[in-house]
Amino acid sequence: MNPLLEKPRKIYVSRKMEFNAAHRLFNPELSDEENSRIYGKCSNEYGHGHNYELEITLYGTIDRRTGFLFDLKELKCILEDEISVRFDHRHLNYDVAELRGCIPTTEVLAVLIWDILEQRLEQFNNREISLYEVKLYETGKNAVRYLGE
Amino acid sequence: MNPLLEKPRKIYVSRKMEFNAAHRLFNPELSDEENSRIYGKCSNEYGHGHNYELEITLYGTIDRRTGFLFDLKELKCILEDEISVRFDHRHLNYDVAELRGCIPTTEVLAVLIWDILEQRLEQFNNREISLYEVKLYETGKNAVRYLGE
Amino acid sequence: MNPLLEKPRKIYVSRKMEFNAAHRLFNPELSDEENSRIYGKCSNEYGHGHNYELEITLYGTIDRRTGFLFDLKELKCILEDEISVRFDHRHLNYDVAELRGCIPTTEVLAVLIWDILEQRLEQFNNREISLYEVKLYETGKNAVRYLGE
Amino acid sequence: MNPLLEKPRKIYVSRKMEFNAAHRLFNPELSDEENSRIYGKCSNEYGHGHNYELEITLYGTIDRRTGFLFDLKELKCILEDEISVRFDHRHLNYDVAELRGCIPTTEVLAVLIWDILEQRLEQFNNREISLYEVKLYETGKNAVRYLGE
Amino acid sequence: MNPLLEKPRKIYVSRKMEFNAAHRLFNPELSDEENSRIYGKCSNEYGHGHNYELEITLYGTIDRRTGFLFDLKELKCILEDEISVRFDHRHLNYDVAELRGCIPTTEVLAVLIWDILEQRLEQFNNREISLYEVKLYETGKNAVRYLGE
Amino acid sequence: MNPLLEKPRKIYVSRKMEFNAAHRLFNPELSDEENSRIYGKCSNEYGHGHNYELEITLYGTIDRRTGFLFDLKELKCILEDEISVRFDHRHLNYDVAELRGCIPTTEVLAVLIWDILEQRLEQFNNREISLYEVKLYETGKNAVRYLGE
Repeated sequence: MNPLLEKPRKIYVSRKMEFNAAHRLFNPELSDEENSRIYGKCSNEYGHGHNYELEITLYGTIDRRTGFLFDLKELKCILEDEISVRFDHRHLNYDVAELRGCIPTTEVLAVLIWDILEQRLEQFNNREISLYEVKLYETGKNAVRYLGE
Repeated sequence: MNPLLEKPRKIYVSRKMEFNAAHRLFNPELSDEENSRIYGKCSNEYGHGHNYELEITLYGTIDRRTGFLFDLKELKCILEDEISVRFDHRHLNYDVAELRGCIPTTEVLAVLIWDILEQRLEQFNNREISLYEVKLYETGKNAVRYLGE
Repeated sequence: MNPLLEKPRKIYVSRKMEFNAAHRLFNPELSDEENSRIYGKCSNEYGHGHNYELEITLYGTIDRRTGFLFDLKELKCILEDEISVRFDHRHLNYDVAELRGCIPTTEVLAVLIWDILEQRLEQFNNREISLYEVKLYETGKNAVRYLGE
Repeated sequence: MNPLLEKPRKIYVSRKMEFNAAHRLFNPELSDEENSRIYGKCSNEYGHGHNYELEITLYGTIDRRTGFLFDLKELKCILEDEISVRFDHRHLNYDVAELRGCIPTTEVLAVLIWDILEQRLEQFNNREISLYEVKLYETGKNAVRYLGE
Repeated sequence: MNPLLEKPRKIYVSRKMEFNAAHRLFNPELSDEENSRIYGKCSNEYGHGHNYELEITLYGTIDRRTGFLFDLKELKCILEDEISVRFDHRHLNYDVAELRGCIPTTEVLAVLIWDILEQRLEQFNNREISLYEVKLYETGKNAVRYLGE
Repeated sequence: MNPLLEKPRKIYVSRKMEFNAAHRLFNPELSDEENSRIYGKCSNEYGHGHNYELEITLYGTIDRRTGFLFDLKELKCILEDEISVRFDHRHLNYDVAELRGCIPTTEVLAVLIWDILEQRLEQFNNREISLYEVKLYETGKNAVRYLGE
């Protein structure tokens, strides 16, 4: 099967998901004035929230037998398990153990998601599949990309 | 000017804006079990949040002199004043006086926005301009429409 | 709770979902020439397919106790049960019993979805909740709306 | 064919298209100060432009033989003919005869499109198909709807 | 003309298009159980379908005379010719000669589109224009990118 | 604060904005026939216009103290100052000094925006923040990316 795959082909596969969370940007080591200057209304006491859109990209060689890079049903389970359970309908400042002592900016959140998924996907490295990119949209206008550097 | 407007023309004009807020769905008059059954993870203690998208629609006769129904610069100011200041980067359960004693569902929020804007726009009724619809998207998948009934 | 709901408030609540299906537009009672003239490349023998986006709108009075019109968790289950199982990853000409003898145009599909959901939601009529609209997008450019007329 | 259509079914069918045009909002009967106050930067001398998105909605009874309300291939031709040729890649103040003496606001443009399409679609009235709505988005945030009132 | 282009400038130019096709994921060399485990409901006998969105990216030096990398009117013709005619309103398992013996996953389809376009665009290599990326969205959530590796 | 940032982390941060402008593609050094062949209806005398969507991407190391790469409030001001004032509601052929003698294609416009922003952002290079990419969408279908090569 799959004569087009006789020659090995490297591909990027992306999957999007959404989670809804609250956060507050506030550094307790700084004065209220500094917090207000740096974080503006993002430092309001009770927090605010976002529909975060997360796009995960994997990279590797297409499996000639299946025509897939990775089983998306399996990826969906991993994302449910590691991302939805941890972040969806949560307040990032209070509910997420891994963010203790962190200011939950979009940048920091993307880095944490990378760390979590890279460890979980490590088992697939022997199949030459690696995590390539974590892209996180805070709003339709703001997004960050982390590539593990 | 505007021969096409010799005959009066009725039109609907819509304007979209976004605000980012946190909320928690929880009714203190009900047991924790009932709250959990009704609101599921939306009742998590510290709340979660959304990028709310709001679409306001006005209805009336096009002004023959300007070709406009309503000055969108003015509408933008009204929405900044009444909606952004009140709801943007707020926690709906704690920061909004008008929601005291309310469960801030999307339905309730749409009704409140209608009440606020209808009163503010009352002064234009003599120019035959009225608020027609408040549409509020909580996520890309869920939306409510309130028409003042 | 919910002083804003002291006065009963009528609201429209919408929920979107997607299903992916194949179909072929072909009327066996017509000649090949007529089929080709009417349906063009939509009549190709093996069919083609779409990511159908479905938006269901309910109408009724907001429940003062919950602040909801309808429990969206319950609506999600109904849509999974009645729509996803029936239409998702199916060939509409072969796999859907209710479409036997029908040409599965977007118009016909919207009517069928209305008939299915109206019957299923009948039990909620005593709570003054009714199906208001079925909107079905075949592509980003083409959509139909059926209101039960 | 089409047992679901034994009972006549009324449906709304929408089609979207885009055109790219320049315009300037300026009323020569008013002073420069008034123009500037009313139209702001929209009155800049050389004009600016938009990707207008137009959504046309037809209303009528589904044709039992075809399962269609209207042949979308035919509608596409009509829109190409009446809308693209007239407005696409044009300067609305200089290139469109029907806008002579008009201030080409989105409101006025929607009214003109209604007038053009209603006349062109008149021939289908005996098949009980009528133009229901012209919706025109000037940007992702601003839209008008004209229903022929 | 074009003083900004005195210094040669390398640019990426992207063009999006859509095609609607049916497919079935099934490997006849595997048992039904394995097919079902690997492909789930994507292996349903009669197939299902998608609105595929394709984004082609070219890379090269901006032509100082025209200000373009590549004539988009010409690219549109090439895409119509090579992509729409081959894939639009087709069943990928039956109607596309180049997919004979292949499992038409999004990954495989992206590779085939690359092979087709790279050969067709070879004639422009002397103008230092090359195909950079084929991005194919199967749904709004799933996408693959192939860069020719 | 921010234990996740003990190890320095490189990140890409993107910000989107829109501006509405008119342009005409026409090279006065070429004959009308050549202009028409190269630019088609884009060479119409009075110009046409677009809702340009601009996405700016910065690259650098997350600031451990703030959790940000860059203060988005500051970036917003820079973009207002350098982009909106220059391009929004303008005719690119007449109103933008930097485009004198240029054919304002999307490619040329992206290059100019890069040149303007790179100079403005130079002052942040010592904080290891650099402009990574200018992406400019002319329509939903056409986009260019310039990376400073």
